Amino acid sequence: MTMSIQNLHSFCKYLISYFFFLNGTMAQMKVGSYLFERIKELGIKTVFGVPGDYELVLLDMILDAGVKWAGNANELIASYAADGYARVNGYGAFVTTFGPGELSAYCGMAGQYAEYVPVVHIVGYPSTKAMKEGAIMHHSLGDGNFRMYHEMVRNITVASTILDDPATATAEIDRVLKAMAYFNRPVYIGVPVDVGPQTIVSRNLETPLPTTLPPNPPELEQSVVDKIVDLLSSRKHPIIVVDGGAVRNGVIEESSELIKLLQIPYFVTGMSKGGISEALGRFGGVYGGGASVPGVKRYVEALDLVLFIGSYKSDFNTGEFTAQISPSVIVDLQRFTTNVLGTDYKLSMKYVLHRLVSVWQSGKNKLAVRGQIEWDPYPLDQVKASEKLTQDFLWAALGRYFKSGDYIIAETGTSAYGILASNLKNIENVHMYNQTVYGSIGFATGAALGSFLAGKESNTIKRGILVTGEGSLQLTVQAFSDMLRYQLNVTVFVLNNAGYTIERLIHGMEASYNTIPEWDYSKICALFGPAFQNKYHRIETPEQLLKLLSDPEFNAANCTQVVELILNRRDAPTSVIRGAEAVEKFNKGIPI
Amino acid sequence: MTMSIQNLHSFCKYLISYFFFLNGTMAQMKVGSYLFERIKELGIKTVFGVPGDYELVLLDMILDAGVKWAGNANELIASYAADGYARVNGYGAFVTTFGPGELSAYCGMAGQYAEYVPVVHIVGYPSTKAMKEGAIMHHSLGDGNFRMYHEMVRNITVASTILDDPATATAEIDRVLKAMAYFNRPVYIGVPVDVGPQTIVSRNLETPLPTTLPPNPPELEQSVVDKIVDLLSSRKHPIIVVDGGAVRNGVIEESSELIKLLQIPYFVTGMSKGGISEALGRFGGVYGGGASVPGVKRYVEALDLVLFIGSYKSDFNTGEFTAQISPSVIVDLQRFTTNVLGTDYKLSMKYVLHRLVSVWQSGKNKLAVRGQIEWDPYPLDQVKASEKLTQDFLWAALGRYFKSGDYIIAETGTSAYGILASNLKNIENVHMYNQTVYGSIGFATGAALGSFLAGKESNTIKRGILVTGEGSLQLTVQAFSDMLRYQLNVTVFVLNNAGYTIERLIHGMEASYNTIPEWDYSKICALFGPAFQNKYHRIETPEQLLKLLSDPEFNAANCTQVVELILNRRDAPTSVIRGAEAVEKFNKGIPI
Repeated sequence: MTMSIQNLHSFCKYLISYFFFLNGTMAQMKVGSYLFERIKELGIKTVFGVPGDYELVLLDMILDAGVKWAGNANELIASYAADGYARVNGYGAFVTTFGPGELSAYCGMAGQYAEYVPVVHIVGYPSTKAMKEGAIMHHSLGDGNFRMYHEMVRNITVASTILDDPATATAEIDRVLKAMAYFNRPVYIGVPVDVGPQTIVSRNLETPLPTTLPPNPPELEQSVVDKIVDLLSSRKHPIIVVDGGAVRNGVIEESSELIKLLQIPYFVTGMSKGGISEALGRFGGVYGGGASVPGVKRYVEALDLVLFIGSYKSDFNTGEFTAQISPSVIVDLQRFTTNVLGTDYKLSMKYVLHRLVSVWQSGKNKLAVRGQIEWDPYPLDQVKASEKLTQDFLWAALGRYFKSGDYIIAETGTSAYGILASNLKNIENVHMYNQTVYGSIGFATGAALGSFLAGKESNTIKRGILVTGEGSLQLTVQAFSDMLRYQLNVTVFVLNNAGYTIERLIHGMEASYNTIPEWDYSKICALFGPAFQNKYHRIETPEQLLKLLSDPEFNAANCTQVVELILNRRDAPTSVIRGAEAVEKFNKGIPI
Repeated sequence: MTMSIQNLHSFCKYLISYFFFLNGTMAQMKVGSYLFERIKELGIKTVFGVPGDYELVLLDMILDAGVKWAGNANELIASYAADGYARVNGYGAFVTTFGPGELSAYCGMAGQYAEYVPVVHIVGYPSTKAMKEGAIMHHSLGDGNFRMYHEMVRNITVASTILDDPATATAEIDRVLKAMAYFNRPVYIGVPVDVGPQTIVSRNLETPLPTTLPPNPPELEQSVVDKIVDLLSSRKHPIIVVDGGAVRNGVIEESSELIKLLQIPYFVTGMSKGGISEALGRFGGVYGGGASVPGVKRYVEALDLVLFIGSYKSDFNTGEFTAQISPSVIVDLQRFTTNVLGTDYKLSMKYVLHRLVSVWQSGKNKLAVRGQIEWDPYPLDQVKASEKLTQDFLWAALGRYFKSGDYIIAETGTSAYGILASNLKNIENVHMYNQTVYGSIGFATGAALGSFLAGKESNTIKRGILVTGEGSLQLTVQAFSDMLRYQLNVTVFVLNNAGYTIERLIHGMEASYNTIPEWDYSKICALFGPAFQNKYHRIETPEQLLKLLSDPEFNAANCTQVVELILNRRDAPTSVIRGAEAVEKFNKGIPI
């Protein structure tokens, strides 16, 4: 028997590893198992995805690690589901195959990137041998190259790797997952089909992955917080705007505490609506520049200090950039920076907020003035019923229908705008979001699946409510087969206004391209989950809507319920009509 | 009134342009209209896509140019439809919006790239002003950057551009479309929302885009063709293998002519099955290495000269690389090169084939021997009926059901493998393909939509037939709403084998991840197109299948017909069972 130098080298490495293993300081496991142990450690209990031959061996290891697999009808839905899951659960994960699988999920990843949702996309790669030889494998581009998808994905992730060497695999997995936690954004791990099952020895698992940011430099933090306290105490009209970044960076608890202590007017934005309680005191409504209700805009523009928590100045979130406030009155807290009247400091918002809360808890500081809410934050709340159902009536009615414990996901388009008018003052523990910045239609249906599943898993959901338009629903409708089989008892409101109404309002009111095929929405469950109980309701009048929303059985939501709302194709929430005009003007370069 | 230097410069340019315009040598039109004039010139009569606010103005110009718009339920389907359309029509086009829209179509584009399908993806971009200012627009990543998607797409296109300057727009459009025609692969054109409607003057349209390759150097071509003629004349067992590259590069007519003249055994591959008539003479069957029927493999391996036309040596197309033939007996014709016994020449196959045909038409050359087909190219053609329906029985029966004028699209998985056994000897003018190299499941449904629409438009389709598995169908099922509303009268065979059978065969026969949700396929049309006539058939036995396939009304296919075929989840075509074993062995690095 002969042994090559290389084999001898491997054998020695193995012996050394085995020695550590026997001494209990190292664990022996498969590369794939290590990955899913880390996934589990991050609190991810369910992994989404679509099977493919390069990843099948890996899927076995998910189950071995005690993590659940929730397969989806396609990869775009898997990426949206992982997004929705992460928004509720903290982190999310999904698995696809090299090439077609992963590429179909890039839209979901870009949305996670834009909106700070930490999701790991695990991709089953061809074998290292095939890649080394440049074999023309299926799902490749036929040129022997295997790096192009990794090149592409670098644009929409904060870290990525292909585990082509088992010796560095655990370090690479940790590096990438740490980046996900640090930046709160998506990452990508490629696992070659032959590397996933290889046995490695590692003691890395003894050290948990860091999931909190390092503390701020104490002296700098103290001096900047002092400045903010001075400003809050001395200015005459201070307000707080809790924006999407507060929700996405997990500082809602601190923000709520501060609002309760300060008792100054506070606002949400399109991106943060539903992310923080509206019953903390002086709730002023939704601030979104020209898209705000008139009273809000007037007040905000008279202010002399605005404490933004996680501001995100995107077009849809600022009424197409009409939220113009001078930097000289802005304090803006962000994940890694704190800006005070135009000066940036490298301070994480979380700890700045902690310290601000402590200062006010000590009771030493007083505010000069506490503004009053002299307007109705929900001006559309009492809209009168007309003969046919209108969007303004709908959103007011839905506000009264929503209850504590609801998970509510609204789709981009008229739904995401419309829901801003809904009164959430009397409900708590609600999970509500939309994709304000990225604005990909079809997202809400997939994300609802993930969120509701996370809610079921953590036993925090009472009802899962999806509000979407029929145009958006058509993109990812097969997600219903998962919502049905995972028995999430979703209540879905489908706004049927015979086409892309928001696009009609922007451009092409009568254009054929804004018309979409007519479906029979009463058949959704019949096709996608014939084995599961479901109900369908068609609503055309305010009266029918009110009757349904007050029906105890409907409110109990013990099965999947599809509510088709027949709306006029020119009808839209008041805020949308204002917003859509601004969008077309902006696109044409006309001053708003 | 003052005028800046820049304005003066623009004014002079305009004057010059206007001068040419008045003299009739230049046309004045919008940038978007120019683009669609070129699209029309390439023979594209219908453009696919999904509307979005950055592209709405552009969509008006499609219709103005006299090109049709066929909107789709989502962008992945649009990209597949444009692929299917291009495979029939020559070129294809689809329009999506910046970000979510385009990213959701990248899988379709990568498939076009891998399989040489020329499609232009037109993307509606934000305004040049918004991009210049780095505004945080919806669909961006929120960082003021607008180039990242273009960076990504460079990996899966042969040319791309963003038309951010109207002055260079027509030249850029032409450059990109020329590359599409030259390489026969996908390209990408981004049109900012403010640039599309800008008026330009150009006389480019007077010069049509070149759609044929430049001729080969005559002397080199002559000498290489002489070599090939000598080899064909002197070797004892010459054969021809018409591979996928022949279909994709449009040399089927020349190849057919050559085969008829030579009368030597010829073969197809998985990628080219159905792309060339099987009635040209000595048809030997499908060659795919170890996945071939035994007689074929034996014969091919005894040969001493194989003329490959457009070989594509991908895993699925070569029985997982078991098609091992020595380069010393290979002549391989490709789009840009001709390889003779291992030596490459820069000669395009099309003209080499023309010359080979001329040589044999002249009647001067003789072959030493003409091999005989001593085996049955369709050994599964007479498989006996068992109690339950089996795949082998199905494919033989479908072979007899297919007729001249059929368009037949088979999905990756058991369908693409199974259909290789179908006997096509008695039919002509068939359009048949699958996505052998890229192998993205869900492709066939979307591509069928595009192909059948192209067939209807050119009045060349008699019946549109889609054969798919229920796992694959679930990815892009909403394409049915388009097939219904465009009244394509599709007959779809859905192989329902309770999960991903091909994946089960590769790995995880009993694994939960290979199980998919149970749908009621009889409800597909009821959901997606309630206004259109349709029929549903559930088939469990060979007897039921034969009865249906011989029913005149079913054969007439005057409405959408869904045929659900109930199959055992362990059953698969014989070739799949052989192939799947090879795949798992290859993935594990075990010699096949």
